[in-house]
Amino acid sequence: MKEKKGALRPVKNDKKQNKKLSVKLQKMQSSKKTQKPEKENKKTLKIRFLGGVGEIGKNMTALEYGKDIIVIDAGLTFPGGNMPGVDLVIPNVTYLEENKHRIRGIVITHGHEDHIGSLPYIMKDINAPIFGTKLTLTLIENKLKEHKLNDVSLNCIKPSSVIKLGCFNIEFINVNHSIAGAVGLAITTPVGVVFHTGDFKMDFTPVNGETMDLTRIAEIGKNGVLLMMADSTNIEIGGVTISESAVKETLEHVFADNMKKRLIIATFASNVHRLQQILDLAQKYKRKVAFSGRSMINIAEAAAKIGELNIPNNLIIDVEKIKSFKDEQIVIVSTGTQGEPMSALTRMASGEFNKVIIGKNDTVVISASVIPGNEKMIYGVINNLYRLGADVIYESLEPIHASGHACRGELKMLHSLVKPKFFIPVHGEYRHLKKHALLAQSMGMKESNIIIADIGDTVELSAKDMKFGEKFKAGSRFVDGVGIDGEDSFVLRDRIHLSEDGLVVVVVGVDELSAQLTSLEIIGKGLVFSEDMINGAKAHVTNVLKSTDLRTVRDETELSGIIRRSIKNYIFKATKKNPMILPVVMVV
Amino acid sequence: MKEKKGALRPVKNDKKQNKKLSVKLQKMQSSKKTQKPEKENKKTLKIRFLGGVGEIGKNMTALEYGKDIIVIDAGLTFPGGNMPGVDLVIPNVTYLEENKHRIRGIVITHGHEDHIGSLPYIMKDINAPIFGTKLTLTLIENKLKEHKLNDVSLNCIKPSSVIKLGCFNIEFINVNHSIAGAVGLAITTPVGVVFHTGDFKMDFTPVNGETMDLTRIAEIGKNGVLLMMADSTNIEIGGVTISESAVKETLEHVFADNMKKRLIIATFASNVHRLQQILDLAQKYKRKVAFSGRSMINIAEAAAKIGELNIPNNLIIDVEKIKSFKDEQIVIVSTGTQGEPMSALTRMASGEFNKVIIGKNDTVVISASVIPGNEKMIYGVINNLYRLGADVIYESLEPIHASGHACRGELKMLHSLVKPKFFIPVHGEYRHLKKHALLAQSMGMKESNIIIADIGDTVELSAKDMKFGEKFKAGSRFVDGVGIDGEDSFVLRDRIHLSEDGLVVVVVGVDELSAQLTSLEIIGKGLVFSEDMINGAKAHVTNVLKSTDLRTVRDETELSGIIRRSIKNYIFKATKKNPMILPVVMVV
Repeated sequence: MKEKKGALRPVKNDKKQNKKLSVKLQKMQSSKKTQKPEKENKKTLKIRFLGGVGEIGKNMTALEYGKDIIVIDAGLTFPGGNMPGVDLVIPNVTYLEENKHRIRGIVITHGHEDHIGSLPYIMKDINAPIFGTKLTLTLIENKLKEHKLNDVSLNCIKPSSVIKLGCFNIEFINVNHSIAGAVGLAITTPVGVVFHTGDFKMDFTPVNGETMDLTRIAEIGKNGVLLMMADSTNIEIGGVTISESAVKETLEHVFADNMKKRLIIATFASNVHRLQQILDLAQKYKRKVAFSGRSMINIAEAAAKIGELNIPNNLIIDVEKIKSFKDEQIVIVSTGTQGEPMSALTRMASGEFNKVIIGKNDTVVISASVIPGNEKMIYGVINNLYRLGADVIYESLEPIHASGHACRGELKMLHSLVKPKFFIPVHGEYRHLKKHALLAQSMGMKESNIIIADIGDTVELSAKDMKFGEKFKAGSRFVDGVGIDGEDSFVLRDRIHLSEDGLVVVVVGVDELSAQLTSLEIIGKGLVFSEDMINGAKAHVTNVLKSTDLRTVRDETELSGIIRRSIKNYIFKATKKNPMILPVVMVV
Repeated sequence: MKEKKGALRPVKNDKKQNKKLSVKLQKMQSSKKTQKPEKENKKTLKIRFLGGVGEIGKNMTALEYGKDIIVIDAGLTFPGGNMPGVDLVIPNVTYLEENKHRIRGIVITHGHEDHIGSLPYIMKDINAPIFGTKLTLTLIENKLKEHKLNDVSLNCIKPSSVIKLGCFNIEFINVNHSIAGAVGLAITTPVGVVFHTGDFKMDFTPVNGETMDLTRIAEIGKNGVLLMMADSTNIEIGGVTISESAVKETLEHVFADNMKKRLIIATFASNVHRLQQILDLAQKYKRKVAFSGRSMINIAEAAAKIGELNIPNNLIIDVEKIKSFKDEQIVIVSTGTQGEPMSALTRMASGEFNKVIIGKNDTVVISASVIPGNEKMIYGVINNLYRLGADVIYESLEPIHASGHACRGELKMLHSLVKPKFFIPVHGEYRHLKKHALLAQSMGMKESNIIIADIGDTVELSAKDMKFGEKFKAGSRFVDGVGIDGEDSFVLRDRIHLSEDGLVVVVVGVDELSAQLTSLEIIGKGLVFSEDMINGAKAHVTNVLKSTDLRTVRDETELSGIIRRSIKNYIFKATKKNPMILPVVMVV
């Protein structure tokens, strides 16, 4: 990665800097005409949920007071099985687009895709400064460059620093997570302090970096927090998450137990602390490290450049060069922990990756947990690795991964330190949010002081009261090829219909003068549709059209309707399927 | 269910009966001409894997010696995400169809779909007697009736009985599983004893029925087992499975803790012992039971009729009648543990099931584990139930389900009792089979005495030797509407293509005399394809065809090729998608 000088501008924790920024923003705002005058209620803070509630994915929340809006995170989701052909899912930011002149900044808690992934799509239209820690901004910068967005204002902050965006004072607080540079936010608003955890866990023996800043959180809690929004991902798991150091122990056993074998370790590229442990162990056990997979190489380089990853000299080799070394001298660090079809590990497992041929002398470690929905893919990869003779170590067998999200024990500690007046659980499906609400209640919070929000909900907060406000336009947008398609479109419905029942195209030629059927072609795709059935369908359409006086038919649309209706039942009887029927009428 | 008298013919454990059967079968065989004379190697037993190895699903294995074939199980699999529109997946039984005159019988270990589900499709062509325990046969009979197969020979056996099919003596041995009437098989063949566990666990405190017959298994082991085939499903789980009685305790707590609420319990309909526990608790806690979901009602009725389920008088009410009772007087027992889209529970959760409206006074218990791949569906249902205000109890929170498959501890006990000379792990994905093989090795078995088989493999077994034999035609067939389609067909490939990239239909009318383009229609479906793009595509096709001398084009196929090639790149540039392109040429 080539770093653009000045791209990452440090934001100092001083008023001058903040004022400048604020002035700059005021100018920006006044130079544009207000698009939609809003009825302002200066007395409440509006919290608008654009994503990340009722789902794990595409986190995005806006805080709005008077004319000022700040946005927390801008993530994406990977499409589910009911979204065939879709590349990515991003939040519908219509509301922000309509109010873009009021956005004072976008504050990013950490660099995972579900917190930064929609920025390249959103920043094409919204021109607001982005704030985040060093690694976070580096990952964002890479993304924006790929999309040729080079003039976005990226502002580097450090944990414990404070910035002012409009009427909001935002303090960044160090938290632990499965990526370096994760922060929570203590936001002083005109109605009171809003504490947002971001994604977090409490790691009291972190491998690199600092323990979550519980001292400062305790202080903030003591001074009074009006509202807390907190990560609910692991609410169903009792106790506390295992420390990253525990993973180190397991990894060390793997190195020690496989002295004669080649090691291949798959992990999330962004888990820089995990990478660091692997590099340290490789150094200790005198192995060279080869990165495999584009995102692994990119992120490792970027993290090394900014000092988040310490790569000893002469440790890294190109994956092309592994054949020059013995198996026991190599660790390959690879992408593909979720069995993603195009990832390095998946291609190794299916024998399609020429650079790494898997065999009996390989031990493959999958140092990650399975994200729900990916089970079939990753187990397919594991089966294939075993078939090729490799040994495979994965989570159901060993503590080879540590979650980045707090379990119930940590959540209880958090609640007891922050002691907020109001609570909105975030970062979870409905069941997680509900259980997090129940946990808060079990610790003495009143049910009426908790809201479980949905995407498109506005929550209105004053110093005394929290309640639902208006609904606003929000939801999903699908990134699909070059088209970004709204979730209410027919495209996905059509695709699912096509994939389940296939289609039948009926092309009818009608002579304009005689109004007679001159030609007929029927084609079936994606369904079991024999020659006999096609001939039967042709005979059926011919009969229907012969018994219809085509001169009384108004237009092609009406004729298409007649054809569709006539053939629908015939095809269902023949195939027990309801394919999409596409009549095309050619008047010649 | 109306029981046909004589449909379930008891098979007595005596030689006379077996001889009769054998004679009858010899007749059946001699009356048909041998279709494919086979080179017979009388010295080896051939074990042919038609399904259930390298996968969890569609179990089917054939044992063949000389002219005799017996089939163990005939299951189905539910389609994965890569099989859109497919209803069911069944084994490709071409080999059995070609050798149907040699099949002496189909022996079924228990009544789960992955062991009986393909019978209705297979028995249309193969006329062999089926053998199983009472509940197994009742479930099979229901299935066959639905498919109007009324003349299949169903033969009821009891655990501990022995039947003779050709040269095979088959002893049925009681095992525990998540369905009543499950058996393992000790098959005396001319080369030695083959022990097949079927699906099993060891439940030392079963709720109904008997503990797995370990005494007999020990005896068989002592007398010498040549080959064991054993269930590998839970090889990754240490220790032993929890007993069905443990579930009873949890269920009793649920009844006791929810005295004022309505209870809705979802479970597998075929888990008759689980149903019995729920009925017993309902009786104890003075609640009426309403069954919901077609398969639940059918199986409960069938099990009650044959005495496998004991339903006290006046306990059951119709689900239509629940409104006549108070919430605390009702337990609804429902299908839908896997979030199946059309199941009772899924429709309750989405508010589409008029008979049961979910609300705050409902406690829903999902008494099952999530089958991998179903996570998103079932968690969707759980989220919806919470949204409607219900409380939900499911596996990640409470021991509300007991697996039907042996864990590592039980598998070790099995191996130590049976002490087979050879071992083939079955009922697992490759990773399970591999680990089961490693477990056997860890207990002293030689690696060379273990085979991990794949579908389509023949294993040849003699008293001294086990090795791979020939490959035979096997795999999957897709049940899709009325069509049963081979796995090598284009239909699924087309569906997946259509679902990911959509399609573009290009209809071109060409005048026969002038060879001029007379009309052009382009339709896009399942892709983001704007009016502008369509017009661009039209202009592009028009240009290409104008610059082509159509008189030199041989036929419609060649012209279709020209159109497809000409538009493919244009569309990819415009949409970044590769839709299916369907040119239709009409010569008029």
